Amino acid sequence: MAAQPDRGRRIVLLTEGHSEPLAGKTASCLLRYRAADIVAILDSTQAGRTAADLFGVGGGIPVVATLEAAGPADELLIGIAVPGGKVPSSWRPVILAAIGRGMRVVSGLHDFLADDPEFAAAARDRGVEIHDVRRNAERDVAKCPPLREECLRILTIGQDISVGKMVTSVELARALGSRGVDAKFIATGQTGIMIEGDGCPIDRVISDFVNGAVEKQVLANQHHEVVIVEGQATITHPQYSGVSLGLLHGCDPHGMVVVYEAGRPHHMGLPHIPLPPLERVISAYETMAGFRGGGRVIAVAMNSRRLSPEQADAERERVRRELGLPVADPIRHGSHELVDAVLALASRRRGA
Amino acid sequence: MAAQPDRGRRIVLLTEGHSEPLAGKTASCLLRYRAADIVAILDSTQAGRTAADLFGVGGGIPVVATLEAAGPADELLIGIAVPGGKVPSSWRPVILAAIGRGMRVVSGLHDFLADDPEFAAAARDRGVEIHDVRRNAERDVAKCPPLREECLRILTIGQDISVGKMVTSVELARALGSRGVDAKFIATGQTGIMIEGDGCPIDRVISDFVNGAVEKQVLANQHHEVVIVEGQATITHPQYSGVSLGLLHGCDPHGMVVVYEAGRPHHMGLPHIPLPPLERVISAYETMAGFRGGGRVIAVAMNSRRLSPEQADAERERVRRELGLPVADPIRHGSHELVDAVLALASRRRGA
Repeated sequence: MAAQPDRGRRIVLLTEGHSEPLAGKTASCLLRYRAADIVAILDSTQAGRTAADLFGVGGGIPVVATLEAAGPADELLIGIAVPGGKVPSSWRPVILAAIGRGMRVVSGLHDFLADDPEFAAAARDRGVEIHDVRRNAERDVAKCPPLREECLRILTIGQDISVGKMVTSVELARALGSRGVDAKFIATGQTGIMIEGDGCPIDRVISDFVNGAVEKQVLANQHHEVVIVEGQATITHPQYSGVSLGLLHGCDPHGMVVVYEAGRPHHMGLPHIPLPPLERVISAYETMAGFRGGGRVIAVAMNSRRLSPEQADAERERVRRELGLPVADPIRHGSHELVDAVLALASRRRGA
Repeated sequence: MAAQPDRGRRIVLLTEGHSEPLAGKTASCLLRYRAADIVAILDSTQAGRTAADLFGVGGGIPVVATLEAAGPADELLIGIAVPGGKVPSSWRPVILAAIGRGMRVVSGLHDFLADDPEFAAAARDRGVEIHDVRRNAERDVAKCPPLREECLRILTIGQDISVGKMVTSVELARALGSRGVDAKFIATGQTGIMIEGDGCPIDRVISDFVNGAVEKQVLANQHHEVVIVEGQATITHPQYSGVSLGLLHGCDPHGMVVVYEAGRPHHMGLPHIPLPPLERVISAYETMAGFRGGGRVIAVAMNSRRLSPEQADAERERVRRELGLPVADPIRHGSHELVDAVLALASRRRGA
């Protein structure tokens, strides 16, 4: 079900007409964590620029107008999430051309490319694979067995969608690793799965089986010292709250790291719905976690991309003071303070 | 997507080997609300008995050992939910025989009968329909538009699965109707859909679209004075909480009626997980409802099937006193007190 990690493959990222960090969240995260595998970004509206110009990451990886201009490549990866999940008609010739060149096509869209008769026929004729990362066959209800308590379970949660839960999760797992801790990032979304090479696309699972699908990920990984489970959306979100609560109860975290974007006024895409204060989000999560093992929020990951360095420092101090929790923007400040909070929790639990 | 109401059809309920009220929840509810359409119960292990003997409802509807013994019939309806959702091999010949007799087959299982090659081929040959009630194509994210405030939205919630949320919902809608209120039962589970003829099988919807699927049901029905939305599971449930929270936020109720079974010690099927107290369930629901319109719990529906009349009265008084809310077992006591609570809320809202 999971994408295999394709270290060493040559990937072209398709972001046609949407090369900016939020719409191109998948592209942007792949550029951050798998830059070595990416040979070009395909966006005819931005040809001649670089990854760093458009996404702020990825350095000099070129933006090209055609597959030919990208040079030799093995894989076309759809790098953006389009509203409604439908493939824009302007992409069809590019996808067909990639198949024609023998390239594997990887997509995280809700609409499966392999179910498109034209793509499917072309892929069959050319003998190439179409990999729809969100496809899954999860059909198991959670069994709620005792979990291995020597494995510390951390869940990233958030105030909204697209605040940086995945980035925080990856950064935390890597920073723990660099301190000698055997930590595993459990991906629960298509981009995380593309980066990590395994995981479960939880928002695509049939709702009855969400808690069970997450539990299964924990059971498969609890030989590690720490698992960092990637959160999705938030339990306070009017559109996606069901996904988020199933995730919370399915992994039953010992601790949570809450992620927010400084300066975001309302739910993304819902200007009529203001964001609840972070305190209220934290309290709701702790209330709902209390129906399982009762994990608490142990740190705050701030996404300060809209702020100047001075503003970011002031915001960090304000939130530290108001919530009494460690606070850091993992990209701007590094993850030391967040890692310290995780290790302190592990140590408190060993002592308990 | 929804089953059409088939008033006047002649239904055989298949409950082979599982003719008891909890495993045969679908059968039991169909017997309660569509007895006039049911000609027989098919359970070779109980032949010669009656619906009332086995389910406590359905009067003299006979239990038969074979389709032949059921007499003329148009429809075979799978009346039980089997663990794992797989069709037991012992049912296969019965289903094939029903198809062979030209009977429509209706199922609420997660495993779709129409996807079974043998059933599908037989149905095609005979020109009969297999209706999998849980099949749906929900693919819309909630849009969170303003809802029609003249339509009062009531959600039934619960302390656990299988406590009586559907029965409470149907009873409430009918009792409101008998008081001259234009009330609509919005079914969200397969049995409710079989009874009402429309609705959405919410636990079978892809998790990203649960809130949206529920919202769509509300939008389609808000010309009524009152909608009673059938709850599923509970947001405190370790296995199914995601379904329940999506349902809550998708319908954004003005008021909730909480349903519980007196004397149930732990989550059904999870003897190691005690039930949280009703107060805590209510508080959690009101906390989470507060991220939308802030509906409150207005009444308690008690399922007192395990209690004697005296015990039920004592329990009712205890809960009334402790929670300060109207309490009634809709089957034992009728729904008057619950209806009064709904009408009082409607009146308070009109006054506000």
